[in-house]
Amino acid sequence: MTTRAEILVIGNEILSGKVTDEHSGFLCREFRSLGVDVRRTVTLPDEIEAIAEAVRQAWTRSDLIVSTGGIGPTHDDVTIAGVAMGLGRPVVRNSTLESVIRQMYDREPPEVVWRLADVPEGAELIVADGLRVPVVRVGKLYLFPGVPEIFRRKFDAIKARFREEPFFLRKIYLTTGEEMIAVTLDRVAKKFPELLLGSYPAVNRPDYRVLLTLESKNAAVVDDAYRDLLSSLPCEAVLPLEEYRAN
Amino acid sequence: MTTRAEILVIGNEILSGKVTDEHSGFLCREFRSLGVDVRRTVTLPDEIEAIAEAVRQAWTRSDLIVSTGGIGPTHDDVTIAGVAMGLGRPVVRNSTLESVIRQMYDREPPEVVWRLADVPEGAELIVADGLRVPVVRVGKLYLFPGVPEIFRRKFDAIKARFREEPFFLRKIYLTTGEEMIAVTLDRVAKKFPELLLGSYPAVNRPDYRVLLTLESKNAAVVDDAYRDLLSSLPCEAVLPLEEYRAN
Repeated sequence: MTTRAEILVIGNEILSGKVTDEHSGFLCREFRSLGVDVRRTVTLPDEIEAIAEAVRQAWTRSDLIVSTGGIGPTHDDVTIAGVAMGLGRPVVRNSTLESVIRQMYDREPPEVVWRLADVPEGAELIVADGLRVPVVRVGKLYLFPGVPEIFRRKFDAIKARFREEPFFLRKIYLTTGEEMIAVTLDRVAKKFPELLLGSYPAVNRPDYRVLLTLESKNAAVVDDAYRDLLSSLPCEAVLPLEEYRAN
Repeated sequence: MTTRAEILVIGNEILSGKVTDEHSGFLCREFRSLGVDVRRTVTLPDEIEAIAEAVRQAWTRSDLIVSTGGIGPTHDDVTIAGVAMGLGRPVVRNSTLESVIRQMYDREPPEVVWRLADVPEGAELIVADGLRVPVVRVGKLYLFPGVPEIFRRKFDAIKARFREEPFFLRKIYLTTGEEMIAVTLDRVAKKFPELLLGSYPAVNRPDYRVLLTLESKNAAVVDDAYRDLLSSLPCEAVLPLEEYRAN
């Protein structure tokens, strides 16, 4: 079974166009190369109810949820409260996180900093090499901060745990339009239910007009579908470009 | 009343990390500068049921919905079917779109191309200068193609209709950490309910440690909150950088 993942990006700064979200794209690429199937990404405002609702919905349809953002000491950091509400759990202070925070200060830290030790009840901490602050996990949900440098360092430190069977991918570049191959694609898509067959028209490209992507965790399916397509498509329309990789 | 918008980006190529989504960021920036409040962005797979569910949910919470992607002649173009299912309407063939398609071909077009004339029942067409193919609208939902060049041309052609009162924005750059100002931010956020107050820590920046953003459609609220913050924050921590604009 392929893990079905969902990404929740939390932050008004993204929705208001001040900051471009790079987390979703990064996580889609990373998870694909880990063999995980990202099924949805959602960008949410810094609002407890919106986060709670999104967590509830993601929980019912996904095996793995990753959130970024909204973890910090200020008024707009409400991810912990939103996740707790979504899961119907109280927010509790974690004593291990309290110790981590205490070690980060020479003297008594400002009172607000202790909010960083708050987690939804039942959360676990994931300790990894190179991480001063552990990653907080609540069941299938992993909570990451939004600051890009810290987020990536934490994700890189624990991403090996997400690895599973890879996807296999082949590409076909065509010099004909989608409307000339749609019937063939439809037939092949129906013939190979395990195949993920994508068709992407290109605009203003001198070299090709459509890119086909053939993908599956079953390498034989990719190969069989690839041969079937090559024998069905008009051969003068297929560019002699070969690309094949296991992610 | 500020329009609450939601963006639905449809495409397996984005979720599988093959293509980086640029639509969400573009639309967040564009809508902000038009005075529209984007409340959520969702990236969805090319699946009728997932699209239908997302449309239903967006419909209940948003005033304006924009979708990109999944409009084309191939097996993975299922946005029209998904929207129709989500709204409980049949898919019907639009005679105006049929005429547009007929004009694009010298001879009889391939059969699959007529799919491009299919719309959810009750759809309207928005004709604009420079657009060969009109934009399809179903009530509050506007359907755009996913190909970036075509999407942007169509959005630019009709975006004036979305314009409303602008947001006003001020920024404050600070050389102190968030934990030292959190109490002040909390007080100001509560004092000005119309204010959108953002606090964004920077990592590895030599010039500042936190960026505050003050935003509202009410310019006086932004100005009052700005003065209040400047009088409350430690003045040695405030960088003499001024930024003020109406989007």
